[in-house]
Amino acid sequence: MKEEGFTVTPWKVEGEVDYTRLVNEFGTQLIDEELLARIKRFAGRLHPLLKLGYFFSHRDLDWILDMYEKGERFYLYTGRGPSGNVHLGHILPWVFTKYLQDSFNVNLIFQITDDEKFLYTDGRNMDEISRYAYENILDIIAVGFKPEKSKIIVDTKHINHLYPIAIEIAKKLTFSTVRATFGFTSSTNIGMILFPAIQAAPCFLPSKIEGKPTPCLIPAAIDQDPYWRITRDVAEKLGYYKPAQIHSKFLPGLGMQGKMSSSQPETAIFTTDEPEVAEKKVMNAFTGGQPTIALQRRLGADAYRCPVFWYLRYMFEDEKSSDERYVKCRSGSLLCYECKYALADAVKRYLKEFQIKREHARDMVDRFMFD
Amino acid sequence: MKEEGFTVTPWKVEGEVDYTRLVNEFGTQLIDEELLARIKRFAGRLHPLLKLGYFFSHRDLDWILDMYEKGERFYLYTGRGPSGNVHLGHILPWVFTKYLQDSFNVNLIFQITDDEKFLYTDGRNMDEISRYAYENILDIIAVGFKPEKSKIIVDTKHINHLYPIAIEIAKKLTFSTVRATFGFTSSTNIGMILFPAIQAAPCFLPSKIEGKPTPCLIPAAIDQDPYWRITRDVAEKLGYYKPAQIHSKFLPGLGMQGKMSSSQPETAIFTTDEPEVAEKKVMNAFTGGQPTIALQRRLGADAYRCPVFWYLRYMFEDEKSSDERYVKCRSGSLLCYECKYALADAVKRYLKEFQIKREHARDMVDRFMFD
Repeated sequence: MKEEGFTVTPWKVEGEVDYTRLVNEFGTQLIDEELLARIKRFAGRLHPLLKLGYFFSHRDLDWILDMYEKGERFYLYTGRGPSGNVHLGHILPWVFTKYLQDSFNVNLIFQITDDEKFLYTDGRNMDEISRYAYENILDIIAVGFKPEKSKIIVDTKHINHLYPIAIEIAKKLTFSTVRATFGFTSSTNIGMILFPAIQAAPCFLPSKIEGKPTPCLIPAAIDQDPYWRITRDVAEKLGYYKPAQIHSKFLPGLGMQGKMSSSQPETAIFTTDEPEVAEKKVMNAFTGGQPTIALQRRLGADAYRCPVFWYLRYMFEDEKSSDERYVKCRSGSLLCYECKYALADAVKRYLKEFQIKREHARDMVDRFMFD
Repeated sequence: MKEEGFTVTPWKVEGEVDYTRLVNEFGTQLIDEELLARIKRFAGRLHPLLKLGYFFSHRDLDWILDMYEKGERFYLYTGRGPSGNVHLGHILPWVFTKYLQDSFNVNLIFQITDDEKFLYTDGRNMDEISRYAYENILDIIAVGFKPEKSKIIVDTKHINHLYPIAIEIAKKLTFSTVRATFGFTSSTNIGMILFPAIQAAPCFLPSKIEGKPTPCLIPAAIDQDPYWRITRDVAEKLGYYKPAQIHSKFLPGLGMQGKMSSSQPETAIFTTDEPEVAEKKVMNAFTGGQPTIALQRRLGADAYRCPVFWYLRYMFEDEKSSDERYVKCRSGSLLCYECKYALADAVKRYLKEFQIKREHARDMVDRFMFD
């Protein structure tokens, strides 16, 4: 969709995103207090990213819980397009996905869409994308998913599991439909045109594995919703359940509005960044501050437009500390460098630990692979 | 293409086909005397289907022979859409393909396009198509290809070998191109839209197997030419050779013009027909005869429009006997029932032998499978 001020499609998020409008436009549901209470009851605790509203929207999450209550286990399905290194904006929903896996004790399918990254990007060859795919898999494993309950599917490697399902889906999707949904044109290549069926296929893989219709819950950023919308449209015709979804917002880049982006490396903190490099990025970050200290003391700063605030809130602080930080920031009693120091410290600590896990992950790749 | 009088696309052949016009429209080359002489020199003998002009057109066959002369072995690639049982119209080009394999001692890749048959046909489920695929594979094996040099690829089973190549091809093909080539519309499903890349992929599989650009020769009926045309257009951009082709005419149905068709079972002799059923079909065949014996004796019959004549010529008679039959038919000294008896006898003998080989083939399926 393209509206004045912001753009959200599976390929592009730009501008300051109005999430309430997005929910209305996409026709998804906001996660309300009642749903949060139910999740808490089943999961034991409410993940901070739910409390803080980073995961804020859904489709049929209430139905997933109904089924769960009846003893029907769902699968989680999420994915990653290996177009570059993984940054903290990618890690966040994965950490949340791990929370769902641990809390509900469910299986996870993790799709690596190397085919799409190849098809979508001019001048990218498959070798380069395969290298990123491997590196990204290390990040996924380092997040700490349960090896015995988590399977990674690489499209070009495991297509034999996906293609038979993809053609069932593809048979129900015309060019008109994908043109309207994804903005394809006559100049779109035919690999991209099929791709929505390849991305939809893992929604129904649990049913194939279990030999009966099996619920599927997709945690993903809301820009991926168009894929699941068309998947939901065909699901029941094919004898499957509609995949349910839980949608996240985007983690802002350090220097920009919109989502953190690998294509603007100075605004993104990569899991492979040297901790000191990450520190420098944080210290150079755009903030919601005033041009001078005097003005900031007098007027306060704009925490809502400050990526440093959001990083701290979503990744490193609990709700209470974050709320206090917010009040201090707005009142002018907190200066930007203080927040930057806090974030830089937290990021450095996080990266050091993560990078150790990431090295251990090299020995676990085979265990995580589908098949 | 659609012209007054006849239609030839990969999905439809109707009416009386003007092959000379087809060659002009498609931009292929007629196989001339010089090329026939070269083939004979390399192959040792000229197959009757070449002498009789059943294989009549080509692209780059001369280049394949140049490469062969330099010691560069080509691969053969042909295919089958498993939409029903195999009839004699299918067997004929396979017999010719076996002649090429034996004469040049080359590898063969045989693609079973079960995905396309599923995607193209409303109301067909994959189980039904898989059953036909298995049955068709028995026919292919019964033709007598060398097991150690022949590999059968079933699209949905071996897609992991095809998809990585198909996306290379797909990235170079826009919707515009496949719309223009195959008559796709906005209502075409997205599986069909990708399919030309799946059918093109085996052209480049030999290069992947050999680890270097490897020539590929496709024996197939001329209605498949649009697939190879777009494949040829992208080949060199991707670092492969353009696939060469040798095109056959269609074997006419027993009751109709156009090609023998599984969708009109009374006009096609299936390899699984009881020999007596096949005999009956032959005896009920449409011929080029006159309405009465008296007229036929006086005016002669029209061998060129008689499927019984063409079956005998292409499958069961040498050039000399066939030419004599032609002269007798045209002069009125031969009556239709005589030709029908001759064909019925030949078909019954052929089917009895073929069906024994077909039963033996059940034990050889695994040996022929790719991987």
